[in-house]
Amino acid sequence: MKQRKQKAKKGEYDVIIIGSGCAGYAAAMYSGRFNLKTLLLGDNAGGKINLTNVVENYPGFIRTTGTELTEKLRNHAMDYKNFVKMKQERVASIKKMGGCFFAETDEGREYSGKTVIIATGTRDRKLNVPGEKEFEKKGVHSCALCDGPFLKGKTVGVVGGSDSAAKEAMLLTQWAKKVYIIYRGEKIRPEPINFQRVKDLARKGKIEIINNTNVKEIKGDKTVTGVILDRPYKGSKKFKLDGVFISIGAEPRSEMAGKIGAGLNEKKEIIINKSSQTNIKGLYAAGDVTDSEFKQAITGVAEAVAASYSAYRHITEDKIVTC
Amino acid sequence: MKQRKQKAKKGEYDVIIIGSGCAGYAAAMYSGRFNLKTLLLGDNAGGKINLTNVVENYPGFIRTTGTELTEKLRNHAMDYKNFVKMKQERVASIKKMGGCFFAETDEGREYSGKTVIIATGTRDRKLNVPGEKEFEKKGVHSCALCDGPFLKGKTVGVVGGSDSAAKEAMLLTQWAKKVYIIYRGEKIRPEPINFQRVKDLARKGKIEIINNTNVKEIKGDKTVTGVILDRPYKGSKKFKLDGVFISIGAEPRSEMAGKIGAGLNEKKEIIINKSSQTNIKGLYAAGDVTDSEFKQAITGVAEAVAASYSAYRHITEDKIVTC
Repeated sequence: MKQRKQKAKKGEYDVIIIGSGCAGYAAAMYSGRFNLKTLLLGDNAGGKINLTNVVENYPGFIRTTGTELTEKLRNHAMDYKNFVKMKQERVASIKKMGGCFFAETDEGREYSGKTVIIATGTRDRKLNVPGEKEFEKKGVHSCALCDGPFLKGKTVGVVGGSDSAAKEAMLLTQWAKKVYIIYRGEKIRPEPINFQRVKDLARKGKIEIINNTNVKEIKGDKTVTGVILDRPYKGSKKFKLDGVFISIGAEPRSEMAGKIGAGLNEKKEIIINKSSQTNIKGLYAAGDVTDSEFKQAITGVAEAVAASYSAYRHITEDKIVTC
Repeated sequence: MKQRKQKAKKGEYDVIIIGSGCAGYAAAMYSGRFNLKTLLLGDNAGGKINLTNVVENYPGFIRTTGTELTEKLRNHAMDYKNFVKMKQERVASIKKMGGCFFAETDEGREYSGKTVIIATGTRDRKLNVPGEKEFEKKGVHSCALCDGPFLKGKTVGVVGGSDSAAKEAMLLTQWAKKVYIIYRGEKIRPEPINFQRVKDLARKGKIEIINNTNVKEIKGDKTVTGVILDRPYKGSKKFKLDGVFISIGAEPRSEMAGKIGAGLNEKKEIIINKSSQTNIKGLYAAGDVTDSEFKQAITGVAEAVAASYSAYRHITEDKIVTC
């Protein structure tokens, strides 16, 4: 529901950061460190990694949780609170006028910045099969950490073959009696260390992998009762499951950047250079929304740091006459 | 002194990492995580950041020290000790033969790897003026944290105008009676937050900045007694100082990469792409030795992570028939 539109003062902020995940927080910290008047806008505090149980690959922390890590990054940013403001608002659109950027939020508020850093991350991809929408959160899930505990003692499936899918499956063994990984490809492809762990769990009978198979439909009554496969497994295409976790990757939230002319690649990721610059002056991007090949918390954070530096240089060196 | 040369078995390691700073350790951690047989070679454990007193800009740690940070990164790498080996040896040269890399160390040992990650960082630049070499460590220093305590109650100079120079000067006020920053340019250019701190210390009379001035010579007896400036300050070119800290930047240690044909830019930095690849297949680089515009611990670490991933993909996907 839109409130009466509130106009922004031109260039009131030096930097507007869109997105409140790892990359957004790191950008806020560094921007604050550069004494830039910084506004961070985001509707999902902590972002995607918040849904990750164990994080072992952020150099410096041997073992932490997603929530702990984002809290640390957020606190680090708020250590520069004289310069950094955070608002829990979703940005609906951005535009660029006369060298200034304007961000409008769902709440109908408008903010203006000399530069913008986009750190909007991704949204989960859907299977797009019958039953998926109908049984959403009634046996169809996308976050083991969030919804796994509801499936205690049950039989569940994880659809997908990536490292994330493997981690979801492993985590689900904490609650579920048995976890099936259903993957359309020849062989699942987690990181080696996680593949080994999956194999160990498979030996114990906790995990079973079904390769070369697609889920065609999700069946249910009040909640999910099973899936229809595109080829028989153990003699039947009907397969009983109490829950299905969809883990088939994600799409970049790059629409608003695309709309103002930022270059996107064929996957719709925002193209950035090594200094996190897009093709639009004053517009930067960092984290999972970008075209970086390898996407990790640490690489997103470093891209955010480079983005803040680029924003700082743009503001101080190019002098910004028009905003 | 060279021992009898010890020949390497071709491709005995998946990854050889050269350099034991932040980037080297992070590369080791990730390579270990990828189950790659990893050897880290370096003669300066912890690298340059070890000499930094306060680190406030590694996202996730609001305030730590250089030593603490490198210890955390090292421990994180050693958490994968089934795959990661570290040896305190300086690599003298590398060569590539038949798709394999060979690294020879000062100790005369040779190691062979399918891939190499160069994380050798930089060496401090010299003033190249009379007296600099003569009084090295006798009043001429390059590390406030290491040698500052020897100048308790004394008057010292810091030559340079960068953020690092400002931090050296601030740290020296812990011990020195008075610190002069001597800078050849118009105005020193630390990060804003550090510039503010320098100004605060200047107001208190602890720091004084001399701009537009070069040090032409360093004078001394047994130890440094002063410097000769290229223009008078307070009426004289002779300026009394008990110690001089040189902080005028650093040069990339890229010689061995250059020798086997890695592309270098005009600053002799190794040119890498966003996946930390050089122009040579199987050769990667990360950290201060690379051509990245913005050089921080966090960006070097992320480059190292990307380098490990690139090495992993090269080994698993390209199959490496020749090594």
